[in-house]
Amino acid sequence: MKKTTLKEIAETLGISISTVSKALKNYPDVSAKTKKRVIDLAESLQFTPNTFAQSLRSNESKTIGVIIPSMVHYYFSSILDAIIKESEKNGYMVIILQSNEDHELEKKQINLLLNKGVDGILISLANGTKDFQYLQKVIDYGIPLVLFDKINKLLKCSKVIINDIKASYDVVTYLINKGYKRIAYFRGDLNPQNSIDRFLGYKKALEDNGIKYDSSLVYLSPIANFDEGYANAKKLIEEDKIDVDAIYTITDLTAIGVINYLNEKNIKIPDEIAVFGFSNWFMSSVITPTLSSVEQNAYRTGEKSVELLFKEIDSKQKGEPFKHETITIDTELVIRNST
Amino acid sequence: MKKTTLKEIAETLGISISTVSKALKNYPDVSAKTKKRVIDLAESLQFTPNTFAQSLRSNESKTIGVIIPSMVHYYFSSILDAIIKESEKNGYMVIILQSNEDHELEKKQINLLLNKGVDGILISLANGTKDFQYLQKVIDYGIPLVLFDKINKLLKCSKVIINDIKASYDVVTYLINKGYKRIAYFRGDLNPQNSIDRFLGYKKALEDNGIKYDSSLVYLSPIANFDEGYANAKKLIEEDKIDVDAIYTITDLTAIGVINYLNEKNIKIPDEIAVFGFSNWFMSSVITPTLSSVEQNAYRTGEKSVELLFKEIDSKQKGEPFKHETITIDTELVIRNST
Repeated sequence: MKKTTLKEIAETLGISISTVSKALKNYPDVSAKTKKRVIDLAESLQFTPNTFAQSLRSNESKTIGVIIPSMVHYYFSSILDAIIKESEKNGYMVIILQSNEDHELEKKQINLLLNKGVDGILISLANGTKDFQYLQKVIDYGIPLVLFDKINKLLKCSKVIINDIKASYDVVTYLINKGYKRIAYFRGDLNPQNSIDRFLGYKKALEDNGIKYDSSLVYLSPIANFDEGYANAKKLIEEDKIDVDAIYTITDLTAIGVINYLNEKNIKIPDEIAVFGFSNWFMSSVITPTLSSVEQNAYRTGEKSVELLFKEIDSKQKGEPFKHETITIDTELVIRNST
Repeated sequence: MKKTTLKEIAETLGISISTVSKALKNYPDVSAKTKKRVIDLAESLQFTPNTFAQSLRSNESKTIGVIIPSMVHYYFSSILDAIIKESEKNGYMVIILQSNEDHELEKKQINLLLNKGVDGILISLANGTKDFQYLQKVIDYGIPLVLFDKINKLLKCSKVIINDIKASYDVVTYLINKGYKRIAYFRGDLNPQNSIDRFLGYKKALEDNGIKYDSSLVYLSPIANFDEGYANAKKLIEEDKIDVDAIYTITDLTAIGVINYLNEKNIKIPDEIAVFGFSNWFMSSVITPTLSSVEQNAYRTGEKSVELLFKEIDSKQKGEPFKHETITIDTELVIRNST
């Protein structure tokens, strides 16, 4: 099958190949008249650009890379859902990598994506990530980069986050208003910004409501999974902290571990101990009792992240300046039977 | 920064560029002596192959494409987890697309992946898929293709499946042995092979145990989600099918919809009605009551699929013949409180 090439269109019209290419991409530096001539001819010849050749010429791969800490995870699956759908609408494909919360692996993956020549990178940082040289390199190379969920404040790039301090403050204020006074917190890893911020929100809400912060009520769940929730609940009960009347956790999966332990021990939720999660996993609406949580709008986070990335890619291609943005996604409390 | 190229290595050693390239890739048609000379020189020059240029020369993109029906789905997330990890170990990146069970979209996505020049494609078919011309095209183009989970038997390519007839037969036989006699089945869409096979297993187990098949006990859940399970359970109860003593469903998410409806109506599980799912979602181990299910070994399915794909890509690169395989992954019943 004979395929029409950019070259043939250029020769027929007596203009350069790069003008044809620019015209087809609607670049501003080609006149409206030339654009019309190119598009009319391309259409009459049923010209379909060869993506691979096109990406060579334009230096665009029409591919973006996404790095997430974990794949089997309701929140990240929902974000990927949005990223893949929106990218496809924009003619982009998505390469997905998972860091497994491993800093060194994440570093390697950034290099892989740079070698691959992706047009932009979206990333939610691994917990272990402490130095950010390799991400600074992405920025220095001029590759558009957007951080979402687990971010670093110091990097000069676009970010999509929630207000973790406020969301967490709202949870604890709600619990206090419901009469709970000894609120344990199963916090996330010490390093990520969102984990730090949720902890600060917890602490501030206690203090603003005249409740003294007690570090013995804070348990660490670095991986934030089911097992850690279960184990920490067991530890809390076995340590005889009998005055604890509520347990609040870094994420729903951990809270579900707590619920499972309390159910097993016939400790009544919420009468003896209330439980509050974070992220509003689907699971939380179908377990017994249903779990109160914070709706984080994962899908919207994905949509906004990819939207910012495409805006920056577009500016870069047009040679226009781009101003980085930080978008804060709204959250709301979802109150269910566990509180 | 000056970069060493394949050309310079070739000129220095007085051999062709393609021999250098083949030597670096350990192709069998280059002598051990030449390979050593090339590798020694490449190392002394700190030569790093430019992936993009390399893929142009070798016609390998070091990228594979995966199409799944849905992203926010425990079974598919677990499969992707395996595919991404195994691909990375093999130096491959993974482009992920989701068909949303839409046949036309899937067709378009196959073309996108072909245009992108991926080295191989993994796919679990959308329910709507009825003609397979575009998949035949992948095979005709010589692009390695592996079908997993939702497959078509007629396509001549490798496949990774479970024995759906047997797994389903085992579920229903188990229920009958436990004394359940009126077993309703909330089946999946009419079209996919796995849905057909699970239905056949259900029917055969009834017949082999002297129970007459009753089509009025079969309800359709084409999307196989929570809402369909809930709605079908409601319908069954409202239709006064009071002799039904067990409900078996196409997947756990649907079964969890059933459990939620029965719990709401204070219908005791399993005393009044038992519930049996399929796929063993994590959720099923933490809801009340915990749900009996079929462990499908999703992670292993992903591992085997990608392993077959790489074997075929490797054979193709070496110009060796490749024999397609169908791998059947073991399943087992996981008995919990719902039965």
